[in-house]
Amino acid sequence: MDLLDAAADQVTREAVEAAFTPRETATLLKPVDSANYTDFYASIHHATRVGRLFRPENPLLPNYMYVPIGYHCRASSIVVSGTSIRRPSGQTKPVAGGIPAFGPTRFLDYEVEVGMYVATANPLGEPVPIRNAGSHIFGLSLLNDWSARDMQVWENQPLGPFLAKSFATSVSPWVVPMAALAPFRVPAKLRPSDDPSPLEYLFDATDQYTGAIDLTVEAWLLTPSMREADQAPHRLSQANLRDLWWTPAQLIAHHTSNGCNLLPGDLVATGTVSGPADESAGCLLELTAGGKQPIELPNGETRSYLEDGDEVILRGFCRRQGFPGISLGECRGLVLPAS
Amino acid sequence: MDLLDAAADQVTREAVEAAFTPRETATLLKPVDSANYTDFYASIHHATRVGRLFRPENPLLPNYMYVPIGYHCRASSIVVSGTSIRRPSGQTKPVAGGIPAFGPTRFLDYEVEVGMYVATANPLGEPVPIRNAGSHIFGLSLLNDWSARDMQVWENQPLGPFLAKSFATSVSPWVVPMAALAPFRVPAKLRPSDDPSPLEYLFDATDQYTGAIDLTVEAWLLTPSMREADQAPHRLSQANLRDLWWTPAQLIAHHTSNGCNLLPGDLVATGTVSGPADESAGCLLELTAGGKQPIELPNGETRSYLEDGDEVILRGFCRRQGFPGISLGECRGLVLPAS
Repeated sequence: MDLLDAAADQVTREAVEAAFTPRETATLLKPVDSANYTDFYASIHHATRVGRLFRPENPLLPNYMYVPIGYHCRASSIVVSGTSIRRPSGQTKPVAGGIPAFGPTRFLDYEVEVGMYVATANPLGEPVPIRNAGSHIFGLSLLNDWSARDMQVWENQPLGPFLAKSFATSVSPWVVPMAALAPFRVPAKLRPSDDPSPLEYLFDATDQYTGAIDLTVEAWLLTPSMREADQAPHRLSQANLRDLWWTPAQLIAHHTSNGCNLLPGDLVATGTVSGPADESAGCLLELTAGGKQPIELPNGETRSYLEDGDEVILRGFCRRQGFPGISLGECRGLVLPAS
Repeated sequence: MDLLDAAADQVTREAVEAAFTPRETATLLKPVDSANYTDFYASIHHATRVGRLFRPENPLLPNYMYVPIGYHCRASSIVVSGTSIRRPSGQTKPVAGGIPAFGPTRFLDYEVEVGMYVATANPLGEPVPIRNAGSHIFGLSLLNDWSARDMQVWENQPLGPFLAKSFATSVSPWVVPMAALAPFRVPAKLRPSDDPSPLEYLFDATDQYTGAIDLTVEAWLLTPSMREADQAPHRLSQANLRDLWWTPAQLIAHHTSNGCNLLPGDLVATGTVSGPADESAGCLLELTAGGKQPIELPNGETRSYLEDGDEVILRGFCRRQGFPGISLGECRGLVLPAS
């Protein structure tokens, strides 16, 4: 960094600066070609709001507070921010007595997430203890787990989401190293005293004190009408990673607790980052109560789910008095009509 | 092949044979380093028997006959036949009022499966039509989808199996090309007239006539006592790939129907291959009715689930009058105690 600062002599600075490209003119590529991609479900607020849609009387499943719920996702369809997203087709649930329809999803959604890139491999059969687990993460980027809700609800049982997710996942084009996030570490989410403590393999005192991250994530929407009228994107939600039920280290410790090997570059995502407030809900499924309560945009348009031409923009940043801010940049994707 | 046949002159044959290693003395490696691994659930007999354990009155879910149910699995923990399998630890469901236990699985199981390796990529956003889908498969191997049933039943909702499967998957060390299986192609499973036909995107007349494969798969068990007494392995089950509800081409067409891109070398497995008869059930979960009806072995031992030192041996072969037989070889794995 010394080569760029004001104290460097002018000849050095000019030589170094010539080697850089302004970000606006650069083509940003996918930062990592991840061999494996896992998605967790670490926001209890997301799990509760989604659960309420299907089980109003009992939204949170009995395993949630004990098990960092996660599943394997599709690594091949990870794309970099700016890649347009083709509306997928798939089967949807039949109306009573009929057969399922096959066609473009009508309930296309985004999910605001943060992706963690693995730095250090663990050999197959050797779990990473919780006290070391944080050091296996290299850094973070934004992630949009595009979801076709009508396909998801029909295919989901008994093995979980499959084609409702695997058509595309967007990631932001740079990775913020964990070292840069050190000033923004905060205690793990405080659990209400009635709620269970983490099991021993997920409990580490240091992780409880400093394992979470004070990182704000936002979702913004730019519709074709807004774009034509040269209006700015509209913010749909703002939430904070510190509100997750699990810390990053707990997710790594759990993932490897059965001996599963993580490889350098593997992507491990948080799941939708939603907070307790309604305006902190990180997907349209939550914001519109399953499409039943469309949101109204400042220009009078409404949305239940995403329409063709809509662009979703995720942003993420850390702010703390006395420290330089950190930006995770943006993760953008524009919805193309079904082919 | 001419170089090896009886008509080749002796000098040629000796020169060529010197370049070969007898199979017994060779170290066989993982045939493909798959970037992505998907597992289907294509045996309606498996789905029905497993469903009956949890929902006796309604074993088959409403989507089963329409949707080739599948999920993403963990590619990093695929190992070659002969690799020993460490018994994994994980969370299991608490008894009423208690907290979950964490420890070695007590319900370790195998699953007899066949894996298909992808030959030809399809670009992201471009589904493979059913009429071309078969040509995207290079060949087949045996696959053992090791499963920790007590972990699975606790973690499974709402996102499907995760750590109950990701600790290890075994594959046999060679791939039989689809071209070699041409004499063994048979019609797709005949569906009872009350059952729905495949949706249009999964229906191709040629595939219906010749899309299935007459391939026998077997599971054999060798316990430590049997090994010490120099006894042969005991056959636990025998089933046939032709009894699957979906053809290989239908699995590929469905997988890509949302635009998901398959890469060369990707592994797409059938799910447990079970047939209609009780002795054709391809895992202990089925054979022992969830552990409640232990099986008896010829030496008087019983098994509900796998014990340390047990070795599971999968075999697969095609036989047809007038054609040379084809062997998929073996897929072996010995269970090591938890670390």
